[in-house]
Amino acid sequence: MTRVHNFNPGPAAIPLPALERARDEMLDFAGTGMSIMEMSHRGKVYDAVHQEALDLVRRLMQVPEHYDILFLQGGATQQFAQIPLNFRGPEQSADYIVAGAFGKKAFKEAAHTGKARMAATTEASGSKFFRVPEPRECEFDPSAAYVHMTSNNTIMGTESRVFPDTGTVPLIVDASSDIMGVELDVSKFALIYAGAQKNLGPSGITLVIAQRELIDRGRADIPFIWQYRTQRDERSLANTVPTFGIYMLRNTLAWLEERGGVAWAAAENQKKAALLYSTLEKRPDLYQLSVEPGSRSVMNVVWNLPTEEMSTECIKRATALGLVGLKGHRVVGGLRASLYNAVSIESVRALADFLEAYEP
Amino acid sequence: MTRVHNFNPGPAAIPLPALERARDEMLDFAGTGMSIMEMSHRGKVYDAVHQEALDLVRRLMQVPEHYDILFLQGGATQQFAQIPLNFRGPEQSADYIVAGAFGKKAFKEAAHTGKARMAATTEASGSKFFRVPEPRECEFDPSAAYVHMTSNNTIMGTESRVFPDTGTVPLIVDASSDIMGVELDVSKFALIYAGAQKNLGPSGITLVIAQRELIDRGRADIPFIWQYRTQRDERSLANTVPTFGIYMLRNTLAWLEERGGVAWAAAENQKKAALLYSTLEKRPDLYQLSVEPGSRSVMNVVWNLPTEEMSTECIKRATALGLVGLKGHRVVGGLRASLYNAVSIESVRALADFLEAYEP
Repeated sequence: MTRVHNFNPGPAAIPLPALERARDEMLDFAGTGMSIMEMSHRGKVYDAVHQEALDLVRRLMQVPEHYDILFLQGGATQQFAQIPLNFRGPEQSADYIVAGAFGKKAFKEAAHTGKARMAATTEASGSKFFRVPEPRECEFDPSAAYVHMTSNNTIMGTESRVFPDTGTVPLIVDASSDIMGVELDVSKFALIYAGAQKNLGPSGITLVIAQRELIDRGRADIPFIWQYRTQRDERSLANTVPTFGIYMLRNTLAWLEERGGVAWAAAENQKKAALLYSTLEKRPDLYQLSVEPGSRSVMNVVWNLPTEEMSTECIKRATALGLVGLKGHRVVGGLRASLYNAVSIESVRALADFLEAYEP
Repeated sequence: MTRVHNFNPGPAAIPLPALERARDEMLDFAGTGMSIMEMSHRGKVYDAVHQEALDLVRRLMQVPEHYDILFLQGGATQQFAQIPLNFRGPEQSADYIVAGAFGKKAFKEAAHTGKARMAATTEASGSKFFRVPEPRECEFDPSAAYVHMTSNNTIMGTESRVFPDTGTVPLIVDASSDIMGVELDVSKFALIYAGAQKNLGPSGITLVIAQRELIDRGRADIPFIWQYRTQRDERSLANTVPTFGIYMLRNTLAWLEERGGVAWAAAENQKKAALLYSTLEKRPDLYQLSVEPGSRSVMNVVWNLPTEEMSTECIKRATALGLVGLKGHRVVGGLRASLYNAVSIESVRALADFLEAYEP
């Protein structure tokens, strides 16, 4: 069995120790004679895993005491609907900073059921976004219910390093593709959410970190299950939680803490991205980086060869060497390497070596 | 490693071959050099598993061609909100047959955001339900948006064997705890839904089977992600699906098909339930069955000893022998044995032998 160098954009690489633990415990978790999947989500054995997962998130992200941590289902896409449902009054509008395809999707979902406006967008022709907006480009509505933004854009490979000051208007961020891969000051946001399938574990879990006070202010005239307070009040056990998913998230975050936490991961990711970008920049005739330097993502590195045929051939030869998941999104074509926490610097070095020596 | 006899009510026993397959493929799925959790939900390798899962549901339940099969998230509890959201017009009412705690919860969610009425209820004092309503007891509103019912009530251990004729009003059933454990004629229902964590696999997946025409009639002025058509049109891949959960569901249903399908499971479950009920009936002074005989569930067998202390002692001694998951729900106390598909007749025999010989 050979493990590949996995550059998938998500679902993505999971730390080997987290998978080995799952394998070894598959038929018998902690001497119970059953899998973690086969027991009650309300029993003591599962509960200890659940609580450890909550505690790990709080420690790793240094989540202040006045924030709640929730594990929800439905991915970021469900949050696109759940956020306006909870926090936008019947006549209120919400502001969206649109810097990529998922930010645009969030805006569309909000605009479908009420008032929403773009506070800024960097959309270029062909649904492309080559940079993120500067905070000074944003025109905010001071009466907006909230401001929504995306911290990292997986498809284009762009990332926001500075966040706007929205005053008393709550700032909400979709951090699906850089959560715990970069250091984030939780106190700057009213609500942070992320699908787990990039840096946190498998798909099927959404992490939500929100100010307690924001959750308390949320609407109560909406379905109970979509009110954030419902899961908050029940420690995310209001209904049957995806127990195996939380268990894998726990395994993944336990590995991260052991390695040195988010500070360690952020430093490693900087090194990984710097290695890859500098390798690509050495051969400007072959590798084209279209994202503006100040907007380049540390998690998703996107580049093109002169023609799509050449990109396809490059992917094919990389794949044959065990460098997989490199196909760029159809909107931009070319190649993309996703460098999430579980992707080792050795994998990135193997890719860099390949790209440096590549003869088209 | 000793596997226990697992009578958990859900999440519940999963077939050993389905778990072994997951264990063996954990680090390398189908020679890809990665886990099924670590690859794109849009790639060919995962897609084949996804399609096999859809095909297995269609074959095993003989789902007619004019029904769509969806894999959603959020459990039955999210369906409690999603069903009225999609199918109830702004001024319309919906009918609920309330035969247990979850049916009541579904009614409450619907009543919170619009008009809902009880077409029948068998609730007794203390939130208990000792029988299911007969179809002739139901008083339907002919202009209702739909009629909602629960086929099997996990907490009380009751089950509906006959279903009401609701004429042109769509009949919707929550079959979470007996889906594929009993034979169900799909064509009698407009929509069937079930959390996966009892008979289908791990928690975190909701199976929905619905008439195509019902989905098409659903409201379009609601959030896109909660319209059934959104996932139907994208083969349940509109957003990142819980890939490992679908994979485990596939493993579980592949095992079921190999063993003989739903007809086999239904016959086995009848035998298992008959063995346990007849064992309990032999000792009426010790074991009290409070559910009316015509309403007894084949999936969840519920009984009490003369005092709660005696029940607790009985559970303790059973647990010591590897017979686990027998604690009754706090509403009814006593014991409950859940006999889902993955619980073998050998496990039930071990339990019956224990109960037959038990000296309090």
